Amino acid sequence: MITPMSRYDIAVDERFMALALSLGRRGHGNCWPNPAVGCVIVKDGRLVGRGWTQPGGRPHAEPQALAQAGAAARGAAVYVTLEPCSHHGATPPCAQALIDAGVARVVAAIGDSDPRVSGQGFEMLRYAGVEVTTGVLAEQAARDHAGFFLKTEQGRPFVTLKLASSFDGRIATGSGQSKWITGPEARRAVHAMRASHDAVMVGAGTVRADDPSLTVRDLGIDKQPVRVIASRHLDLPLMSQLARTAQEVPVWLCHGQGADIERLRAWEGLGARLLPCASHGVQLSAVDILQQLGQAGLTRVFCEGGSALAASLLAFDLVDELIGFTAGIGIGAEGLPSIGALGLGRLDEAPRFELAEVRPLGGDILHRWRRALS
Amino acid sequence: MITPMSRYDIAVDERFMALALSLGRRGHGNCWPNPAVGCVIVKDGRLVGRGWTQPGGRPHAEPQALAQAGAAARGAAVYVTLEPCSHHGATPPCAQALIDAGVARVVAAIGDSDPRVSGQGFEMLRYAGVEVTTGVLAEQAARDHAGFFLKTEQGRPFVTLKLASSFDGRIATGSGQSKWITGPEARRAVHAMRASHDAVMVGAGTVRADDPSLTVRDLGIDKQPVRVIASRHLDLPLMSQLARTAQEVPVWLCHGQGADIERLRAWEGLGARLLPCASHGVQLSAVDILQQLGQAGLTRVFCEGGSALAASLLAFDLVDELIGFTAGIGIGAEGLPSIGALGLGRLDEAPRFELAEVRPLGGDILHRWRRALS
Repeated sequence: MITPMSRYDIAVDERFMALALSLGRRGHGNCWPNPAVGCVIVKDGRLVGRGWTQPGGRPHAEPQALAQAGAAARGAAVYVTLEPCSHHGATPPCAQALIDAGVARVVAAIGDSDPRVSGQGFEMLRYAGVEVTTGVLAEQAARDHAGFFLKTEQGRPFVTLKLASSFDGRIATGSGQSKWITGPEARRAVHAMRASHDAVMVGAGTVRADDPSLTVRDLGIDKQPVRVIASRHLDLPLMSQLARTAQEVPVWLCHGQGADIERLRAWEGLGARLLPCASHGVQLSAVDILQQLGQAGLTRVFCEGGSALAASLLAFDLVDELIGFTAGIGIGAEGLPSIGALGLGRLDEAPRFELAEVRPLGGDILHRWRRALS
Repeated sequence: MITPMSRYDIAVDERFMALALSLGRRGHGNCWPNPAVGCVIVKDGRLVGRGWTQPGGRPHAEPQALAQAGAAARGAAVYVTLEPCSHHGATPPCAQALIDAGVARVVAAIGDSDPRVSGQGFEMLRYAGVEVTTGVLAEQAARDHAGFFLKTEQGRPFVTLKLASSFDGRIATGSGQSKWITGPEARRAVHAMRASHDAVMVGAGTVRADDPSLTVRDLGIDKQPVRVIASRHLDLPLMSQLARTAQEVPVWLCHGQGADIERLRAWEGLGARLLPCASHGVQLSAVDILQQLGQAGLTRVFCEGGSALAASLLAFDLVDELIGFTAGIGIGAEGLPSIGALGLGRLDEAPRFELAEVRPLGGDILHRWRRALS
């Protein structure tokens, strides 16, 4: 959207908005079910306040930035990555706080699709005489808030599917050996990616094969992502790393209706949260898994396979970002495929993604792809 | 190798050698069985002659550069990417031509491993009072001449294995559809890669499935690479594109000893060259295929699969460069794998390559890997 005000320098607005967006992304993985918003306050060209949504979703970004700015907020310009909230929830509305502080102008990247806010935050500001500019770096903001928007609009979180494979797309040898296909730099990058998501998700086969802990290590983070396991029959080892640590870091189990009641109780006893999901054929319904996770408040899920879960997500067009780590080794056709059966009829039915980034990483390559806009 | 002469500027030597190397690479794919050599002649800091091995291998690079330099060659410095030849073959030795022209100095990137030359070219020059410096950009020269050296030392050509696949390493759907997984930019790059090799090679399955022409198109080249098909039983369609064009562009058929005599005659009648090869189990021996191709004079072979041939080459450690074109689509486990069965026991037995280059190409990614030095 083009603002009718021509007395503002678009390059300046974009520079401060880029800063607000980078602050906002600090909340990724920490502030669900709330959006990860960033805010900077600028007075006479000088930065006087910064804020981002805090762990757990509160305080919001704007009150933090306002507190930092203090009296300097009067007459200032506020750059915020999402429309300020207008409804009384657990906190008073941010739009009101901005008005009370006497700010002169609010520049927002994008409107909120939450029906309790949508447009009303801007309206409240304008009604109070605050000048409002919207649409600054809206595309990047749409990406940053995609998880929150998807949850609001479709009831499901944003899904990043990560697959680390050999040159020929194998995630393990025929005998199941997968440690290590990619190098330490790639594995470190995976930990940082986990940390920027609300939850890490794998299928039951991966738990049985690798006994992963799925935690973020060596990054000094405060809040670990939830660990989600999709297991129709809940046939997961009760002596696994996940079972032993379920008290410290949340374990959520997406299971089918017919899962053994003893197992359900055992896992509940260990501290896991149970999420019954619908089935689709012989597998759990990927659609329902994500609906359940969205309902539980998750906005960003990082799925690390295995083959069957990756295939279910792709087959139902539920992958928003696809990340590949590819190593320079060949494993051959006996190896475990990164993506299970998709049941494609023709090549043009194949799920297709657009390249977002590719670069070397240690001895491997990292490539990121986004849902293609068709 | 460090030259004891300190009165030369190494940076200047490297700059002229880099130019000679880039000229030399123009011969890749054109001058087999000879090495693709580049040469520049420099007099008083000024470039007075350039040359590179011409199609078919003659004239060599040095006489061309000398002809261009004329009288200016007297007292000049000659940069050449390979030790000048010292033996009387189809042409008089280049070392003698340099001496006769009265050059003062020869800078060579690397010595020739051909036993008829090895060191004797340098010796002939030094004996005649020409100053000789060697080892300038030797690593790049070793790469550029790798095909020629491999043929001389191991009797086989350099092998580039190219695989164009989906994100999950599939080269076709389960029903065999492969057009098109990667985009037009990737396919154009493949044509340029074919042109820089002496031959393009595929397995029989690829011929039956895709009926490829395997020629270089839209690049305006004079000399098409040889088309090599590995087919143990020679069960290739006689109405294929290859069969119909075998008179214009060479078709070489690597076949097993037991191939049907009628088929052999039919292909010979079409103009194909037959290369009987040893078998290894149920497949042709990849080792022997390459020995036969080396004996026939090829120095650089570009293999484009399919799965079985790729696996044979990898299993016998015959791949020198691995090139991947990866598209952002998922095909799933029913798809045709890029690399067939390798029979790996453990992950550390997997063939491993070092990353040389990765970049976006159209909507796909291009990644090049080199034989790892272990």
